[in-house]
Amino acid sequence: MSDRPKTPLLDTVTVPADIRALDRSQLVQLAEELRQETISAVSVTGGHLGAGLGVVELTVAIHYVFETPLDKLVWDVGHQAYPHKIVTGRRDRIRTLRQGGGLSGFTKRTESEYDAFGAAHSSTSISAALGFAIANKLSGDPHHGIAVIGDGAMSAGMAYEAMNNAAAAGNRLIVILNDNDMSIAPPVGSLRNALARLVSSGKYLAPRRLAQKLARAMPEPLHVAAHRMEQYARGMFTGGTLFDELGFYYVGPIDGHDVNALVEVLENVRDAEEGPMLVHVVTNKGKGYAPAENAADKYHGVVKFDVVSGVQAKAAAGAPSYTGVFAKAMLAEMERDEKVVAITAAMPSGTGLDKVQEKFPDRTFDVGIAEQHAVTFAAGLAAEGYRPFCAIYSTFLQRAYDQVVHDVAIQNLPVRFAMDRAGLVGADGATHAGSFDLAYLCTLPNFVVMAAADEAELVNMVHTMAVHNSGPIAVRYPRGEGRGIELPQVPQALEIGKGRIVRQGTKVAILSLGTRLEEAEKAAEQLEAKGLSTTVADLRFAKPLDEALIRKLLTTHEVAVTIEEASIGGIGAHVLTMASDEGLLDGGLKIRTMRLPDRFIDQDKPEKQYDEAGLNAPQIVETVLKALRSNSAGIEEVRA
Amino acid sequence: MSDRPKTPLLDTVTVPADIRALDRSQLVQLAEELRQETISAVSVTGGHLGAGLGVVELTVAIHYVFETPLDKLVWDVGHQAYPHKIVTGRRDRIRTLRQGGGLSGFTKRTESEYDAFGAAHSSTSISAALGFAIANKLSGDPHHGIAVIGDGAMSAGMAYEAMNNAAAAGNRLIVILNDNDMSIAPPVGSLRNALARLVSSGKYLAPRRLAQKLARAMPEPLHVAAHRMEQYARGMFTGGTLFDELGFYYVGPIDGHDVNALVEVLENVRDAEEGPMLVHVVTNKGKGYAPAENAADKYHGVVKFDVVSGVQAKAAAGAPSYTGVFAKAMLAEMERDEKVVAITAAMPSGTGLDKVQEKFPDRTFDVGIAEQHAVTFAAGLAAEGYRPFCAIYSTFLQRAYDQVVHDVAIQNLPVRFAMDRAGLVGADGATHAGSFDLAYLCTLPNFVVMAAADEAELVNMVHTMAVHNSGPIAVRYPRGEGRGIELPQVPQALEIGKGRIVRQGTKVAILSLGTRLEEAEKAAEQLEAKGLSTTVADLRFAKPLDEALIRKLLTTHEVAVTIEEASIGGIGAHVLTMASDEGLLDGGLKIRTMRLPDRFIDQDKPEKQYDEAGLNAPQIVETVLKALRSNSAGIEEVRA
Repeated sequence: MSDRPKTPLLDTVTVPADIRALDRSQLVQLAEELRQETISAVSVTGGHLGAGLGVVELTVAIHYVFETPLDKLVWDVGHQAYPHKIVTGRRDRIRTLRQGGGLSGFTKRTESEYDAFGAAHSSTSISAALGFAIANKLSGDPHHGIAVIGDGAMSAGMAYEAMNNAAAAGNRLIVILNDNDMSIAPPVGSLRNALARLVSSGKYLAPRRLAQKLARAMPEPLHVAAHRMEQYARGMFTGGTLFDELGFYYVGPIDGHDVNALVEVLENVRDAEEGPMLVHVVTNKGKGYAPAENAADKYHGVVKFDVVSGVQAKAAAGAPSYTGVFAKAMLAEMERDEKVVAITAAMPSGTGLDKVQEKFPDRTFDVGIAEQHAVTFAAGLAAEGYRPFCAIYSTFLQRAYDQVVHDVAIQNLPVRFAMDRAGLVGADGATHAGSFDLAYLCTLPNFVVMAAADEAELVNMVHTMAVHNSGPIAVRYPRGEGRGIELPQVPQALEIGKGRIVRQGTKVAILSLGTRLEEAEKAAEQLEAKGLSTTVADLRFAKPLDEALIRKLLTTHEVAVTIEEASIGGIGAHVLTMASDEGLLDGGLKIRTMRLPDRFIDQDKPEKQYDEAGLNAPQIVETVLKALRSNSAGIEEVRA
Repeated sequence: MSDRPKTPLLDTVTVPADIRALDRSQLVQLAEELRQETISAVSVTGGHLGAGLGVVELTVAIHYVFETPLDKLVWDVGHQAYPHKIVTGRRDRIRTLRQGGGLSGFTKRTESEYDAFGAAHSSTSISAALGFAIANKLSGDPHHGIAVIGDGAMSAGMAYEAMNNAAAAGNRLIVILNDNDMSIAPPVGSLRNALARLVSSGKYLAPRRLAQKLARAMPEPLHVAAHRMEQYARGMFTGGTLFDELGFYYVGPIDGHDVNALVEVLENVRDAEEGPMLVHVVTNKGKGYAPAENAADKYHGVVKFDVVSGVQAKAAAGAPSYTGVFAKAMLAEMERDEKVVAITAAMPSGTGLDKVQEKFPDRTFDVGIAEQHAVTFAAGLAAEGYRPFCAIYSTFLQRAYDQVVHDVAIQNLPVRFAMDRAGLVGADGATHAGSFDLAYLCTLPNFVVMAAADEAELVNMVHTMAVHNSGPIAVRYPRGEGRGIELPQVPQALEIGKGRIVRQGTKVAILSLGTRLEEAEKAAEQLEAKGLSTTVADLRFAKPLDEALIRKLLTTHEVAVTIEEASIGGIGAHVLTMASDEGLLDGGLKIRTMRLPDRFIDQDKPEKQYDEAGLNAPQIVETVLKALRSNSAGIEEVRA
């Protein structure tokens, strides 16, 4: 842990009203202290650092200019909101970020009234801010809805849908485009700041409104031409025509680290009577912390680090991660078959496809934050004989659910889905958990759905996906490291819909899907120690079910327990449905399903989360024992 | 039925190659004959007429200019593809459109190699066409991916995501914007056609490329400025700057009913070496058929009609539709509580919200084809104390699944979902079936999910939603008419999670969710006639379950059957899971779940679809009898 920085001015700020009480000349110092405090906090917690450092000045300026929490501030994604948390009453807990029981790494409504809208998945902020703006309009409340959204998040269709609808909000909606990739505009400078101040000021807006009034009196085509002329004249100097076309009044670009320029422009924007405003702010990710600025990833996500040197704590060398195993397997499949292509939605390093992209740049597609497009694009490739893999986190594939149904499943096209981060995900918490994929995929006709029980299984499943070309197929695997077992030298294609017996017993059957297998095996050991002969099966396939295997297990054991790291509606529900269809329950069967509980689980260490969810070995044992006891003959019978 | 039109030229056309063998001067006549044949066919089948009539010339021109099916033509939504079906080998079956066993009302890969990609939900075409274009690029195949997409479909984020990615396809991707709403551009005329021909021709493109080459040699800011200058100069005359900003080369607008202009421009576009091209075609929906042109909805969807008069067959006056009942109930709630607001995604008349909009224009929001935005916008409104209803068809809510999870369920915001068209939907077929909503909603913590068993229940459920303000709540109800029962004068708020007994018996329990209740009651009559005393329950709530009621039913009857118009993973799975959790299956229980089968069901009359799905009274009776017989004691025991 580092020494705490000296922050005399920040120490006077508990809530944003304290910022508004400062003199504007003090904001530069406040921003600097806020930056140091952010660095210090993340050095002990780890987390998203670069994004927060990029918006320190913006955070100060917004809270200075606007009347939060009455003006509703929505941070897109929310991982840049650590400085915001520090100045909105949560500084005392900032060193609990992303820890069990601590502050969330994202914005969260239950945490603070200053978190107007929770986030974590990208590109929701404009829709939410528009909801606030329209609500205020209906209520006659003059406050604003303010969305702060990154340039990457703008690539998602949802942001565009929201912008298309923004006009109705009038001047109650303000979108601040936090552009740290320079992907949208050329570099900024003092001239541009001056221009932004000009076009956002009353001096410019008043004659513009007059011109518009005159234009509206013209016949329609001339009116349109006049409007376009004004837009273009402005766009020529400032960029942003895309936003103008969508009905925004564009202001920018502005240097996002010049807190005085920000304040001046935001005050103009706040007081403008124009329709929805888009303020284009250019920032540097990692700004003000040299190790971050110099790093390729700008310290996007870091573990604990030393503030002076920037050196991050080394993780103990463990087994390879599932992500790494997937990437290696994917690379092998692409080498083996030139029809195999890979698609990611703005997560090349998160999914491991960055490794693939290096080797096969032409066959790897990063489509941006655009999961809907990713899936239907893959369907088009599949229709033309290619073998596309969509590598999308389980939680993000939710974004493309209709495309999975409508374009892939109904057409029975062989699109492959590699769903990383299935199950609980640790520090990212509930918003990133991959809980629902089994429920939403196993209901779909034509689909094959697998879950890898370990990293060797994953390698074989990736190969199975590559060769399975008669319809859609998916595999889920968790965040984190594998079990450390040996990987197959030559991957094997699994027989579709066939599970495996991992351990043969006689009295208790544990039917596991996915990586709970390890806990199932531990539980089996403990049950054996109690004299309960236990079978453990790895079902491998959630769809189609291995009906022969399941039938046999259910009819030859006294107790059967299914377990999965997924919500209700997954393997447990499907085994029960098959069993009732076949009448296997008619004569009585002690069958229990273990799954994620019916609540969202906050951030914590994964093993603690699974403990909270009741999916570790002790709970499996308890479930079996309780099922056995539920018989009127009581527990003695068990020991017979 | 009308007399068939005389179509001597069309009679020589079976497949597009026959069009390409014609002289260009014959295309006007071919288009006119194709129009008459389309009108004639739809007059006997009913279906989407206006959209098809708007693209007759475009259909002829595309197949004349491009080498279909090697050039891959993707019709967005697909309901405008009837003329396309006529000229692609399906004229002999065109009068079976939307009938059981007949042609689909949309494009469908299994129907024809000329249907490169199936559709029905909007805005997927650019992604799919981009898939084709990229596949061709990888394979070195010069053929194109061609998307034809309406201006309305352009409002969906997915289209924007695809356009954002289009640049990679180069000139293999062509997007034809079929603008029949004039929402994007001012009216066209010969001047504009001439301009379109000019900017798509080599005469213009060659110097443009030279200018671009020169510009690329300039320092970066000048290059950008020069590029923008050219775009704007062009956009000033032709519109379409939005598309230019997204990396398209924009051509248009063109008169979409001038087949010669279309051919000329499409030939230019086909041969251009520019990057992805966007061709803006302006058409009139219903073109060439006076009754359609004069109708407010342009005969968007029609039943059988008389060709000469345009008079549509009157449906027998039946019970009010669920949609109508919902609209009336919604109106009452909005009158009762000014915080209630309504949101539709481009389906005001389909959802019945047009009636609401007339009365409450300020509190009714049509966001366009933008389900993702609709849901998060609603969440924003709910966060500010409003009571938003999202009225979205079950199948289209799939588009917003992640927003339902991430913005509504996790934040536990009281957004209301009115899911029309739940279950099977008749002539629209598999793509529009609302099969999966129970599976994808009932897994979500915090959600309340209801299904209306009849129209009176729907009224009470709408009221229940209005007053339930502690979290998200949804109701599903089917397409078509209610049972004709009396509606409550004053709606009642239902107790959350409580079902009702509709009929009390002793031996067989039928647990129904939704409108299969009517069949369940019929089945009960038939079972009683066989001496089997039958209870029928309407569970009302899929989540939370009425555990007390279910427990009682399962423990006091010999056979229990659940039934729902939904896929696996719905009420059956949830009842089984609860029963196994509680050990209710331990002692043996003949429980069966009836649900939609694990396959997609094609268009047909709804009662036939439910018969195919096995969800009518005879199949309920059979399921019960079979369950009873499955006991080793045999069928005699049943009669005891």
